[in-house]
Amino acid sequence: MSDPERLNWNLVAEARTRIAGRVHITPVLTSESLSALVGARLHFKCENFQKGGAFKARGATNAVFALPPERAARGVATHSSGNHGAALARAARLRGIRAYVVMPNNTALTKRAAVERNGAEITWCAPNLAAREQAARELIERTDATLVHPYDDLHVMAGQATAALELLGQVEGLEAILCPVGGGGLLAGSAVAARTLQPAIRVLGVEPAGADDAVRSLRADHILPSVNPNTIADGLRSSLGVRPFAEIRRLVEDIVTVTDEEIVAAMRQLFEVMKIVVEPSAAVPYAALLARRVDLQGKRIGVILSGGNLDLE
Amino acid sequence: MSDPERLNWNLVAEARTRIAGRVHITPVLTSESLSALVGARLHFKCENFQKGGAFKARGATNAVFALPPERAARGVATHSSGNHGAALARAARLRGIRAYVVMPNNTALTKRAAVERNGAEITWCAPNLAAREQAARELIERTDATLVHPYDDLHVMAGQATAALELLGQVEGLEAILCPVGGGGLLAGSAVAARTLQPAIRVLGVEPAGADDAVRSLRADHILPSVNPNTIADGLRSSLGVRPFAEIRRLVEDIVTVTDEEIVAAMRQLFEVMKIVVEPSAAVPYAALLARRVDLQGKRIGVILSGGNLDLE
Repeated sequence: MSDPERLNWNLVAEARTRIAGRVHITPVLTSESLSALVGARLHFKCENFQKGGAFKARGATNAVFALPPERAARGVATHSSGNHGAALARAARLRGIRAYVVMPNNTALTKRAAVERNGAEITWCAPNLAAREQAARELIERTDATLVHPYDDLHVMAGQATAALELLGQVEGLEAILCPVGGGGLLAGSAVAARTLQPAIRVLGVEPAGADDAVRSLRADHILPSVNPNTIADGLRSSLGVRPFAEIRRLVEDIVTVTDEEIVAAMRQLFEVMKIVVEPSAAVPYAALLARRVDLQGKRIGVILSGGNLDLE
Repeated sequence: MSDPERLNWNLVAEARTRIAGRVHITPVLTSESLSALVGARLHFKCENFQKGGAFKARGATNAVFALPPERAARGVATHSSGNHGAALARAARLRGIRAYVVMPNNTALTKRAAVERNGAEITWCAPNLAAREQAARELIERTDATLVHPYDDLHVMAGQATAALELLGQVEGLEAILCPVGGGGLLAGSAVAARTLQPAIRVLGVEPAGADDAVRSLRADHILPSVNPNTIADGLRSSLGVRPFAEIRRLVEDIVTVTDEEIVAAMRQLFEVMKIVVEPSAAVPYAALLARRVDLQGKRIGVILSGGNLDLE
């Protein structure tokens, strides 16, 4: 048995089997124009085309279907104003169990709709972390549902890992993978999957300069929380989780940052040249390539486009 | 020999071979959400991912590479403020010949840039059809270049036909194909390709209510020009061409119209749910499904998303 608090290959392989048929195998797109522009060979893993419009479907589905029946029967809960809440609601609906989602009362209508559409019960709270955690605690006490954390959870991380796993099966000879970093679930999962299959592959994280807790944590070699994050990439404002950090410090080569202006320029190019919609958080890795924040000239690179849930308003 | 003014299967088959490797084989995307919403099984042929962001690359490339060497050497010309001008410029660059494009002096900067990037020579004119045609005539007199009409040209139509041809190879058992109609090149080509391969397939055209010359022409059984077209779908304002009409009246089941509001709603759904960028003209067929303008409940439908060149400004 391996350390139960560490993400290992078995958990990733199980996740792949568990979520098969319940989430999309997303396509990989290439663009000669963008590859020429950044001087590398880019392969975009389109998680913006994933169920619910984001990679979060992978982790939530794995976590929900990994629960033993008696625990599953009591339902699942989370606090999330973003893609994880909707993904958890969908996974619970697929399994036929209840989902409880705590949301701040200033949540955008489209995000609320995505959770409601999947039949989850919403508990409203004040828009701050203390209120969210308090509401989640009360909820779990009342319902006895299982809390599914958006990233600091091994089954969630194992699910997120399947995006990189798929990508390596779709494209031969990748030399590096670039991933956005918020709580670190996607980056940690990608690193475990990619470096297990191809030990020499380089895995790099990219985060917004206005929410640079991951790079500061990596430099300090212990977690430094995200304090007053300020970035357009709303999916990446969370603090790095303990379990993701354990894998990141071991397997990730480096984390670099990009400015909000660089993120917007990247989104715009993906929109104008590739004709695809990505949310700001998903444009972050391409922004690092465009702004030459990583030294990957001439390499074959996998870029994980994490989601496409952009509010048109 | 078949009628030289009619589009036949041989021309389409030749086009397929001629443009292979010079344009993309575009992917087909599906969406369970949108299929459920319209009550049919939708398969979207993504010409928004085509070279230059539109299906026009197919026809222009076929026309340019079909020219005998001595004629090609004198270059090609067209008048176009849209995707055809840029597509012709690109095809000419690939063949290493000159392209001359007449553009109205109010053309958007991005469209001008797409033509210039491909090294074409631009002639500016006043923004009306008479001035465009006059400038094109003078240009051809001066250069002896070959005029490549954007749709009233058999090689262009044969090139456009390859989108439907590909689609039928990518998806089994399609029962209908929906196509936007402007000048009619794409619809005529699609009809010839699809009904040659699958004689029972239904081919329908969709056009904006504010540029409904094709449906009026079909009802009258002769071409009625587009008078003061007024629609957001700028790619569909042209009048139906003689050569496209000959195929459309023979092979197309019907043409229906949609309002600009319906076009915008369709674009928005493709953007929000499918995370892809389409231009207004390309959203027209899906708009007809969404607004229930066609009776195709429960059918397997191919929807040609003709392009994605949307000006962000």
